[in-house]
Amino acid sequence: MNDPIEITLAKNKKPKRDPNQLTFGTYFTDHMFMMDYTPENGWHQPRIVPYAPITLDPAAVVFHYGQAVFEGMKAYRTKDDRVLLFRPEKNMKRINLSNERLSIPPVDEAFLVEAIKKLVTIEKDWVPKEPGTSLYIRPFIIGTEPYLGVHPSRTYMFMVILCPVGAYYPEGINPVKIYVESKYVRAVNGGTGHTKTSGNYAASFKAQEEAQRQGCAQVLWLDGVEKAYVEEVGSMNVFFKINGEVVTPALNGSILAGVTRDSVIQLLKNWGIPVTERKISMEEVYQAHAAGTLEEAFGTGTAAVISPIGGLIWKDTEMTINEGKAGALSMKLYDTITGVQNGEIDDPFGWTVEVK
Amino acid sequence: MNDPIEITLAKNKKPKRDPNQLTFGTYFTDHMFMMDYTPENGWHQPRIVPYAPITLDPAAVVFHYGQAVFEGMKAYRTKDDRVLLFRPEKNMKRINLSNERLSIPPVDEAFLVEAIKKLVTIEKDWVPKEPGTSLYIRPFIIGTEPYLGVHPSRTYMFMVILCPVGAYYPEGINPVKIYVESKYVRAVNGGTGHTKTSGNYAASFKAQEEAQRQGCAQVLWLDGVEKAYVEEVGSMNVFFKINGEVVTPALNGSILAGVTRDSVIQLLKNWGIPVTERKISMEEVYQAHAAGTLEEAFGTGTAAVISPIGGLIWKDTEMTINEGKAGALSMKLYDTITGVQNGEIDDPFGWTVEVK
Ligand SMILES: Cc1ncc(COP(=O)(O)O)c(C=O)c1O
Ligand SMILES: Cc1ncc(COP(=O)(O)O)c(C=O)c1O
Repeated sequence: MNDPIEITLAKNKKPKRDPNQLTFGTYFTDHMFMMDYTPENGWHQPRIVPYAPITLDPAAVVFHYGQAVFEGMKAYRTKDDRVLLFRPEKNMKRINLSNERLSIPPVDEAFLVEAIKKLVTIEKDWVPKEPGTSLYIRPFIIGTEPYLGVHPSRTYMFMVILCPVGAYYPEGINPVKIYVESKYVRAVNGGTGHTKTSGNYAASFKAQEEAQRQGCAQVLWLDGVEKAYVEEVGSMNVFFKINGEVVTPALNGSILAGVTRDSVIQLLKNWGIPVTERKISMEEVYQAHAAGTLEEAFGTGTAAVISPIGGLIWKDTEMTINEGKAGALSMKLYDTITGVQNGEIDDPFGWTVEVK
Repeated sequence: MNDPIEITLAKNKKPKRDPNQLTFGTYFTDHMFMMDYTPENGWHQPRIVPYAPITLDPAAVVFHYGQAVFEGMKAYRTKDDRVLLFRPEKNMKRINLSNERLSIPPVDEAFLVEAIKKLVTIEKDWVPKEPGTSLYIRPFIIGTEPYLGVHPSRTYMFMVILCPVGAYYPEGINPVKIYVESKYVRAVNGGTGHTKTSGNYAASFKAQEEAQRQGCAQVLWLDGVEKAYVEEVGSMNVFFKINGEVVTPALNGSILAGVTRDSVIQLLKNWGIPVTERKISMEEVYQAHAAGTLEEAFGTGTAAVISPIGGLIWKDTEMTINEGKAGALSMKLYDTITGVQNGEIDDPFGWTVEVK
């Protein structure tokens, strides 16, 4: 896209929040990015405007048929006050993958990375500096045509909103307990599990509530066909370290190709630690646990980066992993990735993109 | 709910459209019904207001996590100018079923039937009288909380919008060709296929586009596990008449319990025609077709009532059913149900509800 980004600055700036009191996803910055799609003009009128409510016809496709996709990424402030994005091109590539499945017209990935950089530059003061904090970036697309026919929308809105987020681990890394879901299913091959479309998440609420009732932080999903194979965790991909080898479910069409997952795999390969993407059943995890070879388990995602799993509840059994403590490999991965993100350690893979 | 419905009438009425030019889902009436939900007040402030855009925070749950459910029903004008609804209590029961799965607080079904009657009464002039026309009623609920955490919304909006719709068969009943989908999957047990949640429909667009490319009107979905068993068609349930017996897929947890489906089953039982709800594979349909015992096939849904299926494309074969013509049973069901809806024939089951 060659349209220039039109900028309208907010007249009144909101007060910043106490960086130690930041909660996720409730308090947004002063500006947002928007652009529109029509069949005649394609994606057009990219603009940065004051954060404000949006007005839609009650018949808009997004309300009825859920035609919506999103992304999640972060901007990090370094000690020397630079602001870094982490692999933003991967997120824009993934939103196009989601678009393709949801019949949404593709966006210009390189243009949007630049648009996000511009928006973050304007909101630079909103990127908190306290350890572990960041500015969360939420790009999303919604179908806006006011038409109740079950058809893809002819018009769309692309938006990016930002919110400062506190440290995920304010009291140090804390392993979580995970509930293995045997009743509800998140996704199946041929469905939308490999995309970040809104409906996947609404479909997961029920299981998430059940997990919390069981004292667990998140759900571990099994495959929708046999309910035997591990898929992913809530909003994280999942890894198991079994007998020195790291195993993660292969990208089989029903799980999300996480950016953090990809980064972890690259790091492990770089470190010479064996890592395999393949099918892995809960039975195998269970047997490894019984045999004492399940050394670590952890989730990976933008929010937590690495989330060590201290326990798994599967049917009637509870498995404690690594005595409920964060494992050495989990910690090393966490320290390395967050170190790169915060500009504290070398970035040999060229993962970070500076916002100027 | 005991709150009275507050009514604000529109100052300016929209012009009605030529009843012979009505298209589905694009032109809405003068008023809509709304109510809100908050944890403190539950569902409250039911009101009928002029049809107007709605304003939401860009962080509203519906845009990101697809927490939305809907219903579809119709009001019909009789020859003697009464207005009838068809089994509206079934739709309100079903929206609560959807709510339960999507972690949306339940609504008061009886109250909402009354609210819909009141809204339709106000919009009575919008119910067209030409044969086959009706007023489409779209109740829906969206999660409105501006919060990006992957959690059920704490606030909701319930709305009902209305649009006059033309005859589904302006040139007489025309059998459709249906594409049996072997790649994409709509739903799986443990998912949301038995509900009317928005995400189910966005997930179906891609297959629908493929079907149209193949010259077909709609998709016939197979089960998500073995891709062998018939589930339903686009926005219809499906029936096969094989050797004198009518067979329809059982409500297995991944298909919608259609109101029309239920009505058809009741009618068939009443007529003494054998009807079975069970698993039925495409292979069985194929074999019946080969043996010459596949007498009729039809879809059932609010939009078309009965949609005879003249042909099925499955993998590389195309099956023509009943020489591509509407079958006698399909026609009898169509005439009976539309006759009841239009008040032209007796309503022995008490399906219609008059709007006064
Ligand atoms: C379903 C799901 N799986 C995995 C992830 C992890 O992906 P990423 O590492 O790109 O944040 C997320 C979160 O983004 C997710 O929503
Ligand atoms: C997926 C699906 N199946 C079946 C139906 C038919 O249901 P009903 O007869 O209640 O209109 C619909 C439409 O409402 C639908 O969306």
